[in-house]
Amino acid sequence: MIDLLKNYSINARRMKKSAIRELLKLTNRPEIISFAGGLPAPEAFPIDEMIDLVEGVLKNYGKKALQYGPTEGYPKFVEQLIKWEKEQNGIDIKPENLLITTASQQALDLVAKILIDPSDPVIVERPTYLGGLQAFNQYGAKFIGVPMDDNETGINMGKLEQTLQKLKTDDEHYKFVYIVPDFQNPTGITIPQEKRKRLIELSEEFQFLLIEDSPYRELRFEGKEPEMMYKMDNTGNVITLHTLSKTFAPGLRLGWIVAHEDIIDKLNTAKQATDLCTPSFTQAIAAEFMARGLLLENIKKVKDLYKKKKDIMLDSFKKYLPERKDITWTRPEGGLFLWLTLPGYMNTSTLFEQALEEKVAYIVGEAFDCYGVMKNAMRMNFSYPSEEEIVEGVKRLANLIKKNIKD
Amino acid sequence: MIDLLKNYSINARRMKKSAIRELLKLTNRPEIISFAGGLPAPEAFPIDEMIDLVEGVLKNYGKKALQYGPTEGYPKFVEQLIKWEKEQNGIDIKPENLLITTASQQALDLVAKILIDPSDPVIVERPTYLGGLQAFNQYGAKFIGVPMDDNETGINMGKLEQTLQKLKTDDEHYKFVYIVPDFQNPTGITIPQEKRKRLIELSEEFQFLLIEDSPYRELRFEGKEPEMMYKMDNTGNVITLHTLSKTFAPGLRLGWIVAHEDIIDKLNTAKQATDLCTPSFTQAIAAEFMARGLLLENIKKVKDLYKKKKDIMLDSFKKYLPERKDITWTRPEGGLFLWLTLPGYMNTSTLFEQALEEKVAYIVGEAFDCYGVMKNAMRMNFSYPSEEEIVEGVKRLANLIKKNIKD
Repeated sequence: MIDLLKNYSINARRMKKSAIRELLKLTNRPEIISFAGGLPAPEAFPIDEMIDLVEGVLKNYGKKALQYGPTEGYPKFVEQLIKWEKEQNGIDIKPENLLITTASQQALDLVAKILIDPSDPVIVERPTYLGGLQAFNQYGAKFIGVPMDDNETGINMGKLEQTLQKLKTDDEHYKFVYIVPDFQNPTGITIPQEKRKRLIELSEEFQFLLIEDSPYRELRFEGKEPEMMYKMDNTGNVITLHTLSKTFAPGLRLGWIVAHEDIIDKLNTAKQATDLCTPSFTQAIAAEFMARGLLLENIKKVKDLYKKKKDIMLDSFKKYLPERKDITWTRPEGGLFLWLTLPGYMNTSTLFEQALEEKVAYIVGEAFDCYGVMKNAMRMNFSYPSEEEIVEGVKRLANLIKKNIKD
Repeated sequence: MIDLLKNYSINARRMKKSAIRELLKLTNRPEIISFAGGLPAPEAFPIDEMIDLVEGVLKNYGKKALQYGPTEGYPKFVEQLIKWEKEQNGIDIKPENLLITTASQQALDLVAKILIDPSDPVIVERPTYLGGLQAFNQYGAKFIGVPMDDNETGINMGKLEQTLQKLKTDDEHYKFVYIVPDFQNPTGITIPQEKRKRLIELSEEFQFLLIEDSPYRELRFEGKEPEMMYKMDNTGNVITLHTLSKTFAPGLRLGWIVAHEDIIDKLNTAKQATDLCTPSFTQAIAAEFMARGLLLENIKKVKDLYKKKKDIMLDSFKKYLPERKDITWTRPEGGLFLWLTLPGYMNTSTLFEQALEEKVAYIVGEAFDCYGVMKNAMRMNFSYPSEEEIVEGVKRLANLIKKNIKD
């Protein structure tokens, strides 16, 4: 056999197996209560509704739904999404502003493909979505992390501006800032309206694209919804990524990108060489699902379920975690995750083995940090475990934390 | 808005909108008989069988089929494919040798991603599959084309060896040779057993990977089947790409890669950052389809249909095309395409406008040539048009060719 190491591309040599994925395998043991995954609750999958509609899709549109489709998307699905964006987010888009993707991860890959050259600085929140880091890393991104504010409003704008100014002074060719503005993965934090406005102003001032990755936006349990940055924007600098993975079913792998038509055109060309098109069949099903008004219904069901689970997790934190200034957590108004911070001397990687012994699991904070140094935090998922498991799992975790407190 | 041209990656600047895709749009007018597309015949889609099985898939496996799945593939589908490769192609593979892809185009993208650095020479047949050229081009491949033999046996081995020797002498770091060995797109040519053996020997002698892209292999109408190169190989240098797009339905976007486990491992890491996983739902459907023995049945149906269409096209060529030494065509034993060569002074790009006026369409040969200079040839698809359309379309094409003959 040829010597693979000599033959892999520089891109390939950069790709590391995700340590998290390997850890996640350990957490699949049935006796473990896992807050580690990012999976939607399977009890919320609209299985009966799908049984009801799939036969019709095959009978009425089978010849199109099983055929190759346009790279930009299956026309009926495109139509539904345009209507959706209008009704839900108040934006008027044309088909030229939309590209269907094989879910959000492909959107991230395509954005990276058309924007990142090796060693290009890419600005991200600390912490940020792991899958974003992986997608950008493939193309050789040099990450520049900007910390969050302490008051659960997301990225620190002062630090962001300093970073941008420094890059400008250094003549660095950075191209975008990656933001997860709604119920961020991993922290659950939402960026308020005022900050969003300022982000858009900065994008024009410092000439960068703003990647608004928003997979959880529809899952708001409480509080007031800030506008989508794409809606607030008049510059054309915002690229928004949406998905049905959290509101319908991740197993369909359906997402979409909303952006200026020139950007969509380039993304479309990239997608054509990447997978020709997203499955017509799943798009046809989603189009019918939306046309029947089932997506809205399903979102309501999912929100009720997750809100309850989130409240139970917060209640259990209050009840079981030691009351200390150096143990804090976020209080998300939606989404699937929250962020638990432990005393600075604790290392959640080291704790992880003990956690498995106690039969509870989470994801270590450092996985979401582009610098890999946020050692004393963890991401907690509340969508997948049952209500009972949440209570019991938090108890186990609290015991573990108490055991490791030094004072 | 920021200046996009200044901000696109080098990769993105390399991506050109496919001229062919734009031409194809013109051929969609209903009055045009099109031999241009590469679409399977929709009358062969197993719609009734799918209606019958999808409900069961949702009822029995819904919670898994609608959830995120492993990057390597949905376990039941992996199981079926291992069985399939054993029974159909006589190869024994383990799960570690297999990666499910969002159809063949994604397989090509992933192979390119892990192997091609900008300016790496990539060796391809002339002509070769357009989608392969597009996928490799994205990563900056420098194409080196090797011509075909005249006797319908595919790549000229003497020229290939010269090319390899030259690259070796020049210390060029080429990494793979891309071959479509079975009923090649665009020519319909199959590479015989002896040549396959020699290709594998050369892969060891000159240390390259051999990409065996084989989407049409199962569609053999007649003649003896050579073995898969992956089967003949003992070196570990062969990467084989398969798909259900031509045997089941392209709208499901399902393919798979068979290769040495180290290569699969790297491809898996790349896929994880590219789209996390292929839709579980379509994989679950395909697994059930195969478990019920329906894939074999469907292949039989497709082959009967396409053989008849191919014969009608060949008969029509004989009947309507001028009998001349400088007008020749291939006689494929399977697949979806054949290759028609016209007198050297004819230019199928120039002819194309006249063809549209005559209400008939094809794809210009130069699209499949890495050097873009095969001007007097065209790819003809026989799977999609009806039998009547094939006769009428060939008549129109023959008239057009006659009009353009100069002597």
